[in-house]
Amino acid sequence: MTYCVAICLKEGLVFLSDTRTNAGVDDIGTFRKMTIYQEGHDRIFTLLSAGNLAITQSVKEMLSHDMLFEGVNLWNAKSTYDAAVVVGMAIRKVKERDEKALANAGIEFNCSFIFGGQVADEKPRLFNIYSAGNFVESTLETCYFQIGEAKYGKPILDRVINYNTSLDLATKAALISMDSTLKSNISVGLPLDLFVYAINSFTKDKAITIDEANPYFAMIRNLWGQKLTEIVMSIQEPNWANNPELLPIVTAPQRLGPIPLVKNEA
Amino acid sequence: MTYCVAICLKEGLVFLSDTRTNAGVDDIGTFRKMTIYQEGHDRIFTLLSAGNLAITQSVKEMLSHDMLFEGVNLWNAKSTYDAAVVVGMAIRKVKERDEKALANAGIEFNCSFIFGGQVADEKPRLFNIYSAGNFVESTLETCYFQIGEAKYGKPILDRVINYNTSLDLATKAALISMDSTLKSNISVGLPLDLFVYAINSFTKDKAITIDEANPYFAMIRNLWGQKLTEIVMSIQEPNWANNPELLPIVTAPQRLGPIPLVKNEA
Repeated sequence: MTYCVAICLKEGLVFLSDTRTNAGVDDIGTFRKMTIYQEGHDRIFTLLSAGNLAITQSVKEMLSHDMLFEGVNLWNAKSTYDAAVVVGMAIRKVKERDEKALANAGIEFNCSFIFGGQVADEKPRLFNIYSAGNFVESTLETCYFQIGEAKYGKPILDRVINYNTSLDLATKAALISMDSTLKSNISVGLPLDLFVYAINSFTKDKAITIDEANPYFAMIRNLWGQKLTEIVMSIQEPNWANNPELLPIVTAPQRLGPIPLVKNEA
Repeated sequence: MTYCVAICLKEGLVFLSDTRTNAGVDDIGTFRKMTIYQEGHDRIFTLLSAGNLAITQSVKEMLSHDMLFEGVNLWNAKSTYDAAVVVGMAIRKVKERDEKALANAGIEFNCSFIFGGQVADEKPRLFNIYSAGNFVESTLETCYFQIGEAKYGKPILDRVINYNTSLDLATKAALISMDSTLKSNISVGLPLDLFVYAINSFTKDKAITIDEANPYFAMIRNLWGQKLTEIVMSIQEPNWANNPELLPIVTAPQRLGPIPLVKNEA
């Protein structure tokens, strides 16, 4: 399994991925799911991948070898959108080659990607690319994408992140989102790859690998559980006393009637 | 879809369920998923259900009509375990009757239940009952069960709940867990049924229905998002300055080597 998340903000982009792969619980591997494509001070792209590793590796191989679509590749694309089209075409090329043989073996053509970056003066952009090679772009309202085991880590993002969130705050929220996923699904695992991209910087200065020994991530993991418990404890207790004025929990208007109660009538 | 959670604690039991059913996004219904079985001061049971509504309603119908298995029903069972066996047998009876016809229609025999309660002097017990009628019991280490859309609401439970948690704290954690699920999955919906059972009380005094107008749940929903953001903000920011002593995020030992970086060599 995999968990990758990327966030597109006014200030830039945050990418975070785990590195665990599994083909059954008795076949666990470690593979990077983040690749950064960079050239000069003109463009930088990041690709996060989930799904069948044989497929995603082939897609990356094609992109690394300057795959062209109608004369465009990652190095000359005029926008992040045009580069996303190239990624989509690479997926379709692998699909054309492998899909039939996979189907014969009863294996679905399963892959998904998050692709984002900046080209020249364009603002940073972020795309969720599907196995059919089509894609959607993040917006002001929906500024992040997840692939892989997305559910455990979604609530914290929905609460904390919006397009105007600072890069630092979004980085912390992404790490907490990852931690929630790590805690609940053993098929998502350390080390993590984190890349925080500030708009117009065109550098990968803030691309790091985080493992068990990383003190900052360890601090977040410990602090988070403790703080969560503190908040829950700080919330007013339900008051069940039979005083309507004091009752913070009240029986709702009986639209549905009471909870079905069965008594032994015999 | 459905989200139900139940927690077995030293002090008693907490049950919480939503009421939304759907057969496609254009076919949404409201059905109770919590049923309380009570008689005198000797026994009280609660059943939470998820899955195919036609199946779960039939199971409840059989239980309400005093279904017997080897002379035992919910009203004379000597333990919550024995009562769980009866629930399992009711599932098998429906399965025997309906499974073939469902299979012919391409429909899986899909249902799951959480069943818990107290009989006489026995301590409260909680069971997760599967569609085959078999079940597992909660333990000191794993003191809660979820059925339905479980993932969004799991991280908060894993952080906050253990067997010695108070009923009030566990109730708050369950409501927050539900809120996280409501926020992320539109196929889980209000109103909610909540039943908090204090050991040896044999009453359903704390069984209520919560809808949009419930001020306590509204307070939790608002406060939670706000407090979460506050904690994330209160966590130390990552310091990217190039000073190893100050660096809270550090590049991990390069076990994996750097994040794959592709440059245009052409």
